[in-house]
Order: sequence, then C-alpha cells, then structure tokens
Amino acid sequence: MNDIKVGLIGFGNIGAGVVKLLTNNAEVIRGKVGAGIVLKRIADRDITTDRGVAVDPSCMTTDVNDIFDDPEISVVIELVGGYEPAKSFVLRAIEKGKHIVTANKALLALHGQDIFAAAARKNVEVQFEAAVGGGIPVLTAIKGNMAANNFGSVFGIMNGTCNYILTRMTQEGADFADMLTAAQELGYAEPDPTFDIEGVDTAHKLAILVSLCFGTRIDFNAIHTEGISRISGLDVKFARDFGYRIKLLAIGKLSDGKVEARVHPTMIPLHNPMADVNGVFNAIRLTGDFVGAVMFYGRGAGQDPTASAIVGDLIGLSRSMLAGAGRRMAPLGLMDEQVRDLPVKPMADIVSKYMLRFSTRDIPGVLGTITGALGKHGISISSMVQTAHEANDNAPVPIVIMTHEAVEGSVQAALEEIDRLDFVCEKTSFIRIEDNLE
Amino acid sequence: MNDIKVGLIGFGNIGAGVVKLLTNNAEVIRGKVGAGIVLKRIADRDITTDRGVAVDPSCMTTDVNDIFDDPEISVVIELVGGYEPAKSFVLRAIEKGKHIVTANKALLALHGQDIFAAAARKNVEVQFEAAVGGGIPVLTAIKGNMAANNFGSVFGIMNGTCNYILTRMTQEGADFADMLTAAQELGYAEPDPTFDIEGVDTAHKLAILVSLCFGTRIDFNAIHTEGISRISGLDVKFARDFGYRIKLLAIGKLSDGKVEARVHPTMIPLHNPMADVNGVFNAIRLTGDFVGAVMFYGRGAGQDPTASAIVGDLIGLSRSMLAGAGRRMAPLGLMDEQVRDLPVKPMADIVSKYMLRFSTRDIPGVLGTITGALGKHGISISSMVQTAHEANDNAPVPIVIMTHEAVEGSVQAALEEIDRLDFVCEKTSFIRIEDNLE
Repeated sequence: MNDIKVGLIGFGNIGAGVVKLLTNNAEVIRGKVGAGIVLKRIADRDITTDRGVAVDPSCMTTDVNDIFDDPEISVVIELVGGYEPAKSFVLRAIEKGKHIVTANKALLALHGQDIFAAAARKNVEVQFEAAVGGGIPVLTAIKGNMAANNFGSVFGIMNGTCNYILTRMTQEGADFADMLTAAQELGYAEPDPTFDIEGVDTAHKLAILVSLCFGTRIDFNAIHTEGISRISGLDVKFARDFGYRIKLLAIGKLSDGKVEARVHPTMIPLHNPMADVNGVFNAIRLTGDFVGAVMFYGRGAGQDPTASAIVGDLIGLSRSMLAGAGRRMAPLGLMDEQVRDLPVKPMADIVSKYMLRFSTRDIPGVLGTITGALGKHGISISSMVQTAHEANDNAPVPIVIMTHEAVEGSVQAALEEIDRLDFVCEKTSFIRIEDNLE
Repeated sequence: MNDIKVGLIGFGNIGAGVVKLLTNNAEVIRGKVGAGIVLKRIADRDITTDRGVAVDPSCMTTDVNDIFDDPEISVVIELVGGYEPAKSFVLRAIEKGKHIVTANKALLALHGQDIFAAAARKNVEVQFEAAVGGGIPVLTAIKGNMAANNFGSVFGIMNGTCNYILTRMTQEGADFADMLTAAQELGYAEPDPTFDIEGVDTAHKLAILVSLCFGTRIDFNAIHTEGISRISGLDVKFARDFGYRIKLLAIGKLSDGKVEARVHPTMIPLHNPMADVNGVFNAIRLTGDFVGAVMFYGRGAGQDPTASAIVGDLIGLSRSMLAGAGRRMAPLGLMDEQVRDLPVKPMADIVSKYMLRFSTRDIPGVLGTITGALGKHGISISSMVQTAHEANDNAPVPIVIMTHEAVEGSVQAALEEIDRLDFVCEKTSFIRIEDNLE
C-alpha cells in the first residue's frame, strides 16, 4: 500500500520525540498500519539546532508553505504551541484539506471551536490525544470505546509540576516555596512556573475533557482556576490527620443540565487509588452511566510518552485513510451539530465539603464566635481539631474544622465575616474535599 | 444516514445489558455515530424468559439463520459463550460477510486463530473489547492509540471473584475457604467456582493480552496457571509484614524473543497503585518503550460495564462503515501476516523473587538445613522471620524466607528436597514476588 505522508510544524523537544518514534519503531508501525508513516517535511524557524535525532536535511524547511502546498502530505502535526502562529497554521492546513494532529492544549481550550468548525467545513479530522495526560490514551477512550455512556463526572491530576511539589510536601512535611525551588533545580518546574502552579495548564486540559465528556463548548474563562501556591505544609499535615491527601484536581461534573468546571487544591481520601498518583504521574478518572468508574494512569508529559500519543493519532488516521474512509469522526467524537452550549455553574452555587484552617489568638470565646458564624450561614461541622498551646502564649493557634456539605457561596460569606474579626491572625485557609470518587 | 443494523446471538444477562444500553442511550449513540445502531434481530434458544428489558417480540427468533441470512445485518454480536456452538455461529456470520463483536474470552483464547483467519479471508473485523477487563477500554488502547510502542510487559488483576476473596482475606485476616463461602453467598462466586479461583478465566484474558501486546499467537496450554485456593491467611499476613499484598496476577513479558505468560498468586508492593485494586475492580498495567507504564482501572465485569464495551465496539465499526471504510483493522491491530509464533518460556526458566513459608518441627538444626539446601541450589536469602514458640511445644513453627532473584527451576528443586526432610510438617508454601511494577 501507499505510505502515508505527514508534515510536522514545530521541531522542538516533542517534535524530536515524534521523529525518534517514527524512525525507531518504523517496522512496528508498518505492521500495525499496513503501510509506512513517512515524515516528509519538517518546518521550523530554526532548522540548524541539533535535536538529537537524525533527519534528512532535505526534509527540513523554514517555510511552512512547503507543507501546506504539498498535495502528497495528508496529515499535519502541529507542535508550535501557544495561540499564534499555531492557530493560523492549523487553519491553513485544514483549508488545504489536511487532517490535523496536535498536542496544543492552550490552542484547543481557547480556540477549539474555530478550528473544529473549519475542520467540519473541509471534512477533515482533528486529533489531539497528546493534549491531555501525555501518553495516556484517555481522549481516544472517551470518544471511542466508552462513547455510548452519559458521563457524569471527570477528575484529573494532570500537571506534573504541581503533583511533584505536592508529593514532596506530603512526604517531607515541607512548605510550598522550598519544594518549588527544589522542583526548579531538578527541571520539573519552569523558571517562571506560574502557568503550571497556578493551575492554568490543568484548566486547559479540563476544558478539553469537559467538552469531550459532556459534548459541550465551554468558555475557558468560566473555569474556576486556583493553583497550589497558597497551600502550606500545615494544610498538608492536617489533611493527612483527617485521612486525606491534597492534590491539584481538575473537576468536571454534569448535573441538571449544568456543568461544573473547576481546578483547585482538593483533598482526596487516602485509600482512593488517585491518592497514590505521585510525582510526575497523571491520572484521569471518569464515571459513565454504564461503564461506572474508570481510571487511567500514566506519564502525563515528556518527550517519549507525548510522541506515543501523537503517533497513535497518526496510526488511527492512517488506518482510516487506507481503508478508504473519509472523515470517520468529528473532533469531539460527536457530530458537530450536536455539540451543546451548557451553562457553567457559578462557583457560589457548587456544593462541597471543606477543611477550614483558622489562625487565631488564644483568647476566650474564639471557638464559639467562629462556630456561631458558620452556623449562621448554614454550615454544619463534622469534626474539629484545636491543637494545644505553643510554648509562646502569644503565638497564633490553629483551629481546623471539617464541614459537612455546604454551598460555596455561604462558606465564602462566612469566611469573609470571620476574617474581619480581630482575633483572626491571618486569612483563613479553606480546602475543598472530594470524597465521592467511589 | 442509514442506520446500522445489528444481530445479537445469546440473550442472557449481558445481552439484556446491550439491549438496555442501545435503548436507554439511543440518542447519545446517534449523536456520536451520526446514525442509529438498531438491534434488528435477537436469537436465543429461549425467547420466552423475561430478561428485564423491553424487546419487540418480532425481533426475537430461535433460528440463528434469521440473522445470518439477513443481508441488512452488518454486525453480529456473539454472547453465547463457551466454545460450541459459539464458534460455529461466529464462523458462519463471518462467512456471510458480517463483522463480529464478541465478549467470549474462552473462545478467543483457544480458537482465536481460526476465527481471525476466517475474518481475514472475508475482509471483516472482529472486535472483543468486552472479553478483557469488562468496561475498561484497554484492548482498544493497545490496538489503537498506543500501537506505536513495543510492549515489554503486561500485568492484570482481572478476576473479580479472586480479587474479592483476596481483598477480604487481607482485610479480615480470614482463610480462603471461609471467604469463598462468603463470596458464594453474596453471588460473587459461582456454586462451582473452579474456573475463577483456579485462574482459568484470568488465563483466557492473559492469552488475549499477550497476543495483542506482543503480536503473537499463543498456545493456551502453554500458559502456566495457578489459582488462589492454596493461599492461606498466614501467607497474607506474612506478605503484609514484608510490605506486600497478594493478588492473583496475570503476567506477560517479552524478552529476548521469548514470551512469559503466567497466572499465579503474586506479591505486589503495598505502595504500588495495583495493590489498592480491591474487590470486584480490575486493573491492567502495561509498559511500552515510548509510553512507559500505563494503568487502566475499572469494573471488570457486570451487565452494564460489559455492555458499554460491546456497544463501544459497535460504535467504532459503525463509524468506519458510515465513513465508507472497508476493514479498518485486523483483530489484533496488526496485519494478519505479521502475527508471529513466539516461544513461551518454560516456567523452570523464569526468574523471580519468592516468599517461602516453611512449616517445621522446632528441633535444633532446622534453619541450617533449610538455608543450606537453598544455598546449594544457588538461592540467596534477602530476609527471614522465624516466629516465637507457640504455647504448645510440639506445634509446627513457621519459618518465612524472602529470596533474592532466583531461577524457578532451582527453587522448585530446592523445595522438593526440603519437603522430603522429616522435620517438615507440611508442603512448603511459595509465592512469587513482582516488585518491578515501577
């Protein structure tokens, strides 16, 4: 059979991984597809830097049009990253009738609708398994074998930087700032880590998961996004005392026609398999009305796992083309015209359990005032810990309260009220609890 | 678009689940496929028993030829189970040019080659996601998005009956026989549980996984298969003391062109996510040369999860047909002519760590004799526990030895020699250890 010819735009770390996989495992891939997958052209602004993989120099070009204008190239891999020029490149490749494979979560989270609409007009496919969970084939599963289900929830631990920091905070009883520095020294965190530690990367991935699971467009800005920088070693310790571990969790839920989409530090029960997802591993857990709970676990980033997902997408597209299929699947695994615009539930309306950690001066009446304020807002307490005095009588005393399920708006109103009281020494820490992970 | 017409053979518990899913989620499925998936005919010897789902009586037939001879029916779901007449039904459906979806692991494990060869001749697909891990979409992932990898290993906890019994033995310190009875009372074990507890069901699933991961035919009888009935509460307790949990693990490995394929009770490190796979949940863990370690977790059996996998296969086939594709993928996700016949490594040649539990009379020189016999066979000891005397001086004393890696043949030879000694009170218990699960 005729080989499938592919063009690659963006020859960085992941692009080099794709070249390595297509080269090293060429015979494996040929055996699976029945034809070769040949990288005919690689476009990048920089074609001189050594990427650690052997490439025929005649494949390299600085002009992306060499890919767009080559009628032999049927699939374009976009690994430029970011919004522009990545978006323009993808739209031009679609315009030229080429299928798209991309790992660009930011682009899909913010501009997925435009890209998917263009792909529908030109009857091409857009595949993006590598955009969520690295090598973990979770998107293929949601769109594919689990597609018969109504999904009720999706939970993800999807940022290696955050999970590495939180894992070490848990194991060593350390504080956030020290572990961030350690992660940076080891190359697990960027010099400017904001994008990861403030949850933006996780929110991009959640936007994609929510779209796929619930068949809806979602406004990225409607996703409530909190990072882990406000988590202290004390929070981690108290969470463990109550039988929980803190993870940066992406949460998507669908109920009564409304979507919850939020990213924030979350307490997970210690004996749940997701509590054991440590270091740079990722996990995504979904529930479908027939399949029940399913969890996927693996390496969420890195050159090799990401290349595995990208080439996996190429294999799927190649099989369809070789079998004579036109467009076999819309980008969300759902007919384009069926994609909905479900409303996102405001954070004030969500219901959760909470761990509240107050830091107060040790004077009479503190506990009564706090519990009174919570009660006034309809928040009921499931358990409480007030630790003994420190040696220094003037040191702030932590009071930790676990709540039953409460409405977020009421919790925020109560905390605002409490944080204005003059015996409160610092802003109250609150962490949401998710213990319905089956 | 035209609806996809399907025939179902075998209207038991799982068949009823498929009807329920196709009915309840008909609109979801239509949205994903772009056409309806319509169950046109259901064949069973018994068409009068109420299966708890509403079926148009005119769909029902006792004559399977009503399905084979209907040119509108393009996919046949085989849920008869067992070897015959299931095999004949599948071959006749293939002969009639129909795609096959089946959950029949026993049939595929023993007669997969005949069925796959017939499917290749008639250019139809055979899909069987439900045969392994219930609703967990692991086969689709191996054949699909992870297909670019060379797989090195696959591990599975894949029998709910065994895992339920072992979980309760662990949690309650109970013995096998009592927990088997409890499982039977709750309906988690069959009245004749042999097939499950002796590992045969798990071995069927392993045969399928090994074929898929390593691209090889495998003689089912070459799979070493041990069940859990020889595991005692004492084994579970000592395993935990050494930091392990006992699971019935299916193990497939590929090295130096030889396959290991074995099912036996196995000690897994407590802090590995697979150690937390409890009760009726299943997990399958694979390693690929690019993707690294990936784990899939979910409900491994039951009407609804199994129906999810079966209808997932239907959705995949329907998409291909509607996109105009012929046969998009061979049954193993590998061109038929590429499937190999790799040799299976004899058990005597495998290398493992072991926990050995000796039961001896408490006389001088016992430990020296045992360690001497192990040493003679090249088995070195990593740690040891000899518990204190019981009140009764004549009671057997357990000696538990953890070994370093050793060749199975040497271990068996040493144990045979030791078990002939007159101070040995009962056959020595040995449990293999798998601590390379990353």
